[in-house]
Amino acid sequence: MSRKLSSRPNNRRPDQRGEPFNAQVPGVDYGVLDELVGYCLRRAQIRIYQDFLDALGSWSITPPRFSAMTLIGNNAGMKLTELARAMGIARSGAVEVVNSLEKLGYVARGASQSDKRAHSLGLTPEGALALQAVTQAIREHDLRISAALSQKEQEELRRLLDKLG
Amino acid sequence: MSRKLSSRPNNRRPDQRGEPFNAQVPGVDYGVLDELVGYCLRRAQIRIYQDFLDALGSWSITPPRFSAMTLIGNNAGMKLTELARAMGIARSGAVEVVNSLEKLGYVARGASQSDKRAHSLGLTPEGALALQAVTQAIREHDLRISAALSQKEQEELRRLLDKLG
Repeated sequence: MSRKLSSRPNNRRPDQRGEPFNAQVPGVDYGVLDELVGYCLRRAQIRIYQDFLDALGSWSITPPRFSAMTLIGNNAGMKLTELARAMGIARSGAVEVVNSLEKLGYVARGASQSDKRAHSLGLTPEGALALQAVTQAIREHDLRISAALSQKEQEELRRLLDKLG
Repeated sequence: MSRKLSSRPNNRRPDQRGEPFNAQVPGVDYGVLDELVGYCLRRAQIRIYQDFLDALGSWSITPPRFSAMTLIGNNAGMKLTELARAMGIARSGAVEVVNSLEKLGYVARGASQSDKRAHSLGLTPEGALALQAVTQAIREHDLRISAALSQKEQEELRRLLDKLG
């Protein structure tokens, strides 16, 4: 099975198929999933992702692409393996993300000012500009998804999440 | 770019490449990511995933594969589109997961007792057996990742996560 690499995120949401979007679909028996902390986390992520896509629909930016751009922008001359490690993903996953960002014209290999060796990653001028706008949209998204939590609850959530794993 | 569909999860971890695994790599500037609730969630997931793989390394089971098997096992005759909706993922993602599970011999299309139409999904007897063992391993994994939290903290974490999005 082959999959075409696309610059568009592979993310047709249920609501784009004319279906209501729901992290917990009524009438479906989730069995043990309802009991697991891990799946509770996943469920929160499904809900958050929806707003992320709404906020960034016009940008072809997924969460991993945003993380990668931010890391590349903040760590001049970063290598692919370093990026994978920083993102906590497999090298093959980082290759896929960087290929997509290269195709969008946001990232270039060997474009770093500080390191001219092959495979050092850098944002293109277009990528740096896009990152500014995208970061603003994501700050607003992050405020929105956590709006139902007080400042104290947000700090408590961070503290508890940091204790997981 | 083509990607071979494999029955093995595409998840070579940093530690399998002889590197220390870390959701927050020292010396890397994470920029705005450190401020975002969304990335805090992602970071917890990176740490949890590590233990998930350690627990299930011999099973070729990823979190989405486990979710899919549980949902298919609990909802007889479920269709692919229903599975995608229940998992909160795109239909193309559900196709990929089901293909992998079919290749592993755990899921069959049209194998449901209650619905003989094409595309109704069912666990094979081998899949049902595997799911029992995998569920046990995942229950233990879930206890492990949340071991640093008291019962009260776990309930608070669930409450706060449910308020996100």
